Amino acid sequence: MSYADDSLMLHTDLYQINMGETYWRDGIDKRKAVFEVYFRRMPFNNGYAVFAGLERVLEFISNFGFTESDLAYLREEGQFGEDYLAYLKELRFTGTIRSMEEGELAFANEPMLRVEAPLIEAQLIETPLLNIVNYQTLIATKAARIKQVLGEEAVMEFGTRRAHELDAAIWGTRAAYISGFVATSNVRAGKKFGIPVAGTHAHAMVQAYIDEYTAFKKYAETHRDCVFLVDTYDTLRSGVPNAIKVAKEFGDKINFRGIRLDSGDLAFLSKKARKMLDDAGFPQAKIIASNDLDEYTIMNLKAQGAQIDIWGIGTKLITAYDQAALGGVYKLVSIENENGEMTDTIKISANPEKVTTPGLKRVYRIIDKEDGHAEGDYIALANENPEEQQRLKMFHPVHTYISKFVSNFTAKDLHVDVVKNGEIVYKTPALQDIQAFLQKNLIVLWEEYKRTMNPEEYPVDLSQACWDNKMNLIKEVKANAKKQINLKGER
Amino acid sequence: MSYADDSLMLHTDLYQINMGETYWRDGIDKRKAVFEVYFRRMPFNNGYAVFAGLERVLEFISNFGFTESDLAYLREEGQFGEDYLAYLKELRFTGTIRSMEEGELAFANEPMLRVEAPLIEAQLIETPLLNIVNYQTLIATKAARIKQVLGEEAVMEFGTRRAHELDAAIWGTRAAYISGFVATSNVRAGKKFGIPVAGTHAHAMVQAYIDEYTAFKKYAETHRDCVFLVDTYDTLRSGVPNAIKVAKEFGDKINFRGIRLDSGDLAFLSKKARKMLDDAGFPQAKIIASNDLDEYTIMNLKAQGAQIDIWGIGTKLITAYDQAALGGVYKLVSIENENGEMTDTIKISANPEKVTTPGLKRVYRIIDKEDGHAEGDYIALANENPEEQQRLKMFHPVHTYISKFVSNFTAKDLHVDVVKNGEIVYKTPALQDIQAFLQKNLIVLWEEYKRTMNPEEYPVDLSQACWDNKMNLIKEVKANAKKQINLKGER
Repeated sequence: MSYADDSLMLHTDLYQINMGETYWRDGIDKRKAVFEVYFRRMPFNNGYAVFAGLERVLEFISNFGFTESDLAYLREEGQFGEDYLAYLKELRFTGTIRSMEEGELAFANEPMLRVEAPLIEAQLIETPLLNIVNYQTLIATKAARIKQVLGEEAVMEFGTRRAHELDAAIWGTRAAYISGFVATSNVRAGKKFGIPVAGTHAHAMVQAYIDEYTAFKKYAETHRDCVFLVDTYDTLRSGVPNAIKVAKEFGDKINFRGIRLDSGDLAFLSKKARKMLDDAGFPQAKIIASNDLDEYTIMNLKAQGAQIDIWGIGTKLITAYDQAALGGVYKLVSIENENGEMTDTIKISANPEKVTTPGLKRVYRIIDKEDGHAEGDYIALANENPEEQQRLKMFHPVHTYISKFVSNFTAKDLHVDVVKNGEIVYKTPALQDIQAFLQKNLIVLWEEYKRTMNPEEYPVDLSQACWDNKMNLIKEVKANAKKQINLKGER
Repeated sequence: MSYADDSLMLHTDLYQINMGETYWRDGIDKRKAVFEVYFRRMPFNNGYAVFAGLERVLEFISNFGFTESDLAYLREEGQFGEDYLAYLKELRFTGTIRSMEEGELAFANEPMLRVEAPLIEAQLIETPLLNIVNYQTLIATKAARIKQVLGEEAVMEFGTRRAHELDAAIWGTRAAYISGFVATSNVRAGKKFGIPVAGTHAHAMVQAYIDEYTAFKKYAETHRDCVFLVDTYDTLRSGVPNAIKVAKEFGDKINFRGIRLDSGDLAFLSKKARKMLDDAGFPQAKIIASNDLDEYTIMNLKAQGAQIDIWGIGTKLITAYDQAALGGVYKLVSIENENGEMTDTIKISANPEKVTTPGLKRVYRIIDKEDGHAEGDYIALANENPEEQQRLKMFHPVHTYISKFVSNFTAKDLHVDVVKNGEIVYKTPALQDIQAFLQKNLIVLWEEYKRTMNPEEYPVDLSQACWDNKMNLIKEVKANAKKQINLKGER
């Protein structure tokens, strides 16, 4: 059987729907559950991550609901009861989501989103939430690293042809734009998100004409703004001279913006080309460079004095080539029990970094009122208010002897309500405002956390109450496990 | 301005539309052009790649055409003339595409697709074609490597949460299925492509209940087929014993398929768990393992005697983690001149591997009639027929002294017509048939090319005529470039 529509509701792992059946038949499907989305390790070993993906998450939530064809497929698939399918048909998302805003700085082991929803609803959205947030946060972070080494220099996203299928191309370029990229080559992303689009011509155009000079001339005849791609045959002996020749011939008839280098030794070629352009009377013409660039090659090119004004970044950004996945997870931290009380939950692991932190929590950025810089992030139980404390003790959640006291601070709640009882209550700001929000957040961060290599580790600490709660629960679970094993031993 | 629809026609680089304007105003937009899609280096240093993406390419081609809102956006964007926009509005794809079928083996520097179309149409489809084929071929190849080390053992795709946005999750799992994966966790992919779906329950379900035993029991009460995830608290002391306990209690009421390990030392845990299951009288219960697996970890686990029956692969496959991009390119090899004759084109580069091979060509797999194995692939000009030759000379296209003569062979044309004069003339086979086609193709390949590490380099050779044509064109372009430089010198 084939299904014409392609609703995204089934864009989830089968086990979510399987578990849902257990919950429903057992009558616990509507118990309130609290899940958190976070990652355990900093992507690219960067000092911070840039949260992105919320817009797409809200788009998904607003379309929550199984379609007739989804249900027909599940019926055909054969493992679900009709009564359960009838129940799924009526299912709507009624939960509440608090989330970082896009452009917020995120760090390892702190919740980026917190979902409070009936258990089955919370499970069904897990997979798409992670799929979206993991990718977009990864790319926004990679783009921020590239932007970090470029300072105010302009950088554009050129990666569509190497992106992982179509969605990644457009949502990835949006994430890059959040982190300060100025334009994209992808026209659909321009249309969909209002991102400025950029591009001139390809090698194919040069080849389509009898020679390079003719190609540039034809382009100049049909476009006011001209950037010539000069490396089709021989950059310095043919490409740059032909670009200069056409620029001279057309004079004021075109706006000769510059040239683009897409292969070869970009340091050497850009310096030579710069001199040729200057000598020819085009000091204002820019040099645009691309070719598998990332923050590492850019730093090296700059160290060699490359004369590059505008950077085009493709493969290495859009695929996050040096670390192609962010390992964001979605963990249950609290659930309603049979008496209607919330009880905290934990997942233990032999690997200490995989032990979850239980409880309904909030995340605060502790900012020193005097210097305006962040002292660290502070994860507290929801009923705590760190601003009520005169002197806040911040200690490392694993190596607890590392601690400090902070006073005269503000505690910024990093989450905002985005969905309340199923209603979307958040409007995504304009992308330019998200860009500005990120810049504002970065100012709060000490420079030591912004190095692209070996940055200092930014503190993400637990409140004493949060830490105590975690330790108590570990003990409890261990005791329970022992009890069960002993029981089994008795048989 | 915002645009409600999201047609894929603008999913292209801006420069394609820019060049299109030059071509159209200059009256060369309808000149017939030939482009080829190929990659220059084997992904993962594998001995072969598995071509995938054609289905999605044809879906794109069948929807070719600018929508009203696409044109409204381009108008707003501001750099295109109204007359050109009116022209774009009427533009349809009228070209012809020959392509490998999905599941065909592809090698470096041989065309996977060949597009013959009016210049502007051929340019507009470049970006989406590469975006699609690069990703899907990459994942099919990665999946084939994983399958290579697993032989007949079952392997499932579990990567949605780490995929690069939504499209990658479903098209990536389809690519994995082509290469022999047996199932996916993504339900939408199951619905859309008919791929078997798999999955049981997550850690969250174990946490949602008072204890692990209760959770397993509740799952068993509501599902006939049971696989228990045993690593929420303590795999060997709690998880496996609880799974066994529930399996014993439920007896024939459930189909106890086995357990799943998702963390810890999989070699150690699987061996211990195997023994526990066997001792408890469940020798038929399978052990399923997942946790950042790929072909390297699988080989190591097997070397250590891990007792794993079924493998779940996530992040490392769906993101092609160790090489997250395939560098497929789209190059102009021939174009109609002002006299209506086809002239071959070349792109020269200081980097020899980037020099293109000019001309309208076909690609043949040369198969020895006696042993049924491939001697190599053979790229010939379209007017050549290698089967007419008694003794075929095959020589390395760069190191030409490496050569051999082949006789008693068949030459299999690796391309089929998929689009003819704008009409789609190819129907994608059932996925099971594509799986079988790949297996058939792999049988033709000598084992030396299939090693996952340091395989032999499979020969992809040019015919003498093709090679001569390339050399002549290199000379011609170099002479032309010199002439132009001399002319410039005279002024």
